[in-house]
Amino acid sequence: MKVGYLGPSGSFTHNAALKSFPNEDLLPFANITEVIKSYEEGLVDYAIVPVENSIEGSVHETSDYLFHQADIEAVVEIIQPIKQQLMATDSQKSIEKIFSHPQAIAQGKKFVKENYPDAKIELTASTAYAARFVAQNPNQPYAAIAPDAAAREYGLTVVAKDIQEIEENYTRFWVLGHEAQPIPLTQIDSKISLAFTLPDNLPGALYKALSVFAWRGIDLTKIESRPLKTVLGEYFFIIDFENHKEELVGYALEELSSLGIAYKILGQYDVYRI
Amino acid sequence: MKVGYLGPSGSFTHNAALKSFPNEDLLPFANITEVIKSYEEGLVDYAIVPVENSIEGSVHETSDYLFHQADIEAVVEIIQPIKQQLMATDSQKSIEKIFSHPQAIAQGKKFVKENYPDAKIELTASTAYAARFVAQNPNQPYAAIAPDAAAREYGLTVVAKDIQEIEENYTRFWVLGHEAQPIPLTQIDSKISLAFTLPDNLPGALYKALSVFAWRGIDLTKIESRPLKTVLGEYFFIIDFENHKEELVGYALEELSSLGIAYKILGQYDVYRI
Repeated sequence: MKVGYLGPSGSFTHNAALKSFPNEDLLPFANITEVIKSYEEGLVDYAIVPVENSIEGSVHETSDYLFHQADIEAVVEIIQPIKQQLMATDSQKSIEKIFSHPQAIAQGKKFVKENYPDAKIELTASTAYAARFVAQNPNQPYAAIAPDAAAREYGLTVVAKDIQEIEENYTRFWVLGHEAQPIPLTQIDSKISLAFTLPDNLPGALYKALSVFAWRGIDLTKIESRPLKTVLGEYFFIIDFENHKEELVGYALEELSSLGIAYKILGQYDVYRI
Repeated sequence: MKVGYLGPSGSFTHNAALKSFPNEDLLPFANITEVIKSYEEGLVDYAIVPVENSIEGSVHETSDYLFHQADIEAVVEIIQPIKQQLMATDSQKSIEKIFSHPQAIAQGKKFVKENYPDAKIELTASTAYAARFVAQNPNQPYAAIAPDAAAREYGLTVVAKDIQEIEENYTRFWVLGHEAQPIPLTQIDSKISLAFTLPDNLPGALYKALSVFAWRGIDLTKIESRPLKTVLGEYFFIIDFENHKEELVGYALEELSSLGIAYKILGQYDVYRI
């Protein structure tokens, strides 16, 4: 079986893929859209992408693409703790430039400010790219902020361990596909993610949409608004809720439709923890 | 009077600052946090930062800083149409690398894919930095995606005009300070932005928080959740609502407090359009 993931090798998504599909053929893709497209084009059987980080928030590229374009659903969710390492080549004594993805830079901001106040920060498309670039330029005073897996993958030495600002740092990953798949991890929950738009002619429409769930005691675990990309002030909404009472959830969705609220199910998935 | 803005010269925020404070002393700062700090440290009388784009969504650095750290409020909102230009030095015949801010890159993605499929994309901290960097390297095959103002500021030539994907592209800017200020633009609305957290012991707490406004017919124009940066699944919420019925708004806020919902007013402002 083939599984696409947000690469390159050594990325956090790669680690999530290794832990959930240890015996399958894992293929890296350059960005989130390419990962999802690889599934749509039949190149892979499942596609793994990040969806939310506990500090930086939602990964908009994932939710926007799933809402606007994709015909694919999350069938598994994986929660992974995120730890960031500062790494450089073995011979490197001074660090003048630090490369990483904007989210990892944000997570290591405090450490860098205290320990390398004069270092220049350079943004890269992923933490793993940063590690690879540093490995490819061993004679430059460069370092990268990236996961352990990237240090192993590109032969770098960890200069400072676990530099992330907040200990409680987790990322949610979605396995996209059409059928749930047994995963060798511990299951901790079961959820549904839904995107919906509100009809113009329904005053207090968002409140009514949420009523549908509140009346039935269905717990929302997340709500988010994203621009519809039409005019300023027009949004679609994403809600996550517990899928513990399947019959009640069915009624809630029927009632949403009868209110004239159009929705798209982004995923119905068991949640696992690494 | 001194007004700080998200620089450098030639940025969209610079243009918003010029239009709203045409006769004042405008000072650029390197990032959003520095702009807000310049106000907190008494270096400026007002600070102007972007808060939301109609395509890319909220500017999290602004709302997170205002919620977590700042003691400052939005007193004016400015809505500005965003148009992106591809620009290079006059002598440049080939374009192999395109520099810009991630949001501008996203907005020009389709144009770049169709017209410069082989160009490498390099991310910069702002569109204006991209323009300045391209101007500083006239012998390289470089181009930048940036606003007209940046082409003027750094002497670049617009190679392709209005390359943004969607015509309806607007950004909201906030003028932060302590007192409303007359602005030489057309006023179109009056709003309040509020951030709140929900008490653990209140089932259906988000629903109840929204009820406070829905019952009174106070129209929400936006709702958003942001991670509290504690554990995954803990959020604070930002709502924008129309400030047309001041007495009702007062009662709504009292009721929020009596439900045990802690809130912070991020801004109470008239909205102007460029």
